[in-house]
Amino acid sequence: MKFGIVIFPSKKLQDLANSYRKRYDPHYALIPPHLTLKGPFDVSEEQIKEIAEKLHGVAKRFNPLHINVPKFSSFQPVNNVIYLKVEPTQELQDIHEAIDALQIGETSEYSFVPHITVGQKLSNDEHSDVYGSIRMQMVNHEEVVDRFHLLYQLENGSWTVYETFRFGKE
Amino acid sequence: MKFGIVIFPSKKLQDLANSYRKRYDPHYALIPPHLTLKGPFDVSEEQIKEIAEKLHGVAKRFNPLHINVPKFSSFQPVNNVIYLKVEPTQELQDIHEAIDALQIGETSEYSFVPHITVGQKLSNDEHSDVYGSIRMQMVNHEEVVDRFHLLYQLENGSWTVYETFRFGKE
Repeated sequence: MKFGIVIFPSKKLQDLANSYRKRYDPHYALIPPHLTLKGPFDVSEEQIKEIAEKLHGVAKRFNPLHINVPKFSSFQPVNNVIYLKVEPTQELQDIHEAIDALQIGETSEYSFVPHITVGQKLSNDEHSDVYGSIRMQMVNHEEVVDRFHLLYQLENGSWTVYETFRFGKE
Repeated sequence: MKFGIVIFPSKKLQDLANSYRKRYDPHYALIPPHLTLKGPFDVSEEQIKEIAEKLHGVAKRFNPLHINVPKFSSFQPVNNVIYLKVEPTQELQDIHEAIDALQIGETSEYSFVPHITVGQKLSNDEHSDVYGSIRMQMVNHEEVVDRFHLLYQLENGSWTVYETFRFGKE
């Protein structure tokens, strides 16, 4: 089964992200807006119980953290993904590293850029149009994140939550 | 904010349900296949933390439970909902009552009929056609359920998981 690890931001930020995702993200109906901590990995249903226990251990070691979302950004020229930029902080970096250190599946080849995707699989023209119109828009959103989630993917490509992990809790 | 409490069955059963929901359930893209323990209720973000604590208390009092899904059924003539019938058991009834006893929002006016919806908002003709073709099909699926989830609804009607509660765990 394919699993992933994400933070769901507040309803307010999810609603904002969805107002763009609806038009610009083909994954709109497959998963709520999210900040990916670990991208898709394949493990068996047996193994996932052990991994979930380890993730409880990781969550326990961290406190709830502030995240700051200043504005939109883009991965261009690497790809045509537009996202809500989440200010990289030491806490986010540490959590990402703690999860990576569990050595589940393959380690990501990309450096960790915390973000919430709002548009992807756009043509170059679409990307220019959309990003051109929202890049100057300030978001300046702050919130406290107190949990993350382990998800699995169904055959239709959509994601269901397996378990929640609260920071500072066993 | 609007919240709900559900059980997500195994991936296998979700995939089966989705193969029908894709065509017959307008909620297909809004929420994964689920067994509703408590329908939508309105509470503030403040209150939900207290409710989540109480739900941990409920979960702790129960052991993981077997569910048995023999076949498809329908709520006709009450409404045109087609569902995977979940055999009512004392455990399911007890869990439902324990959640109801928390007196969150309004108490349901319907008796508890555990089910996983696969089709709804069908015209009478559609209902007859679809139900006629699957009612004789045996499902005979059994599994163990070891958790339930508290969800909230976004502005677009889709649902995000707030928290997981594992039976037998604090």
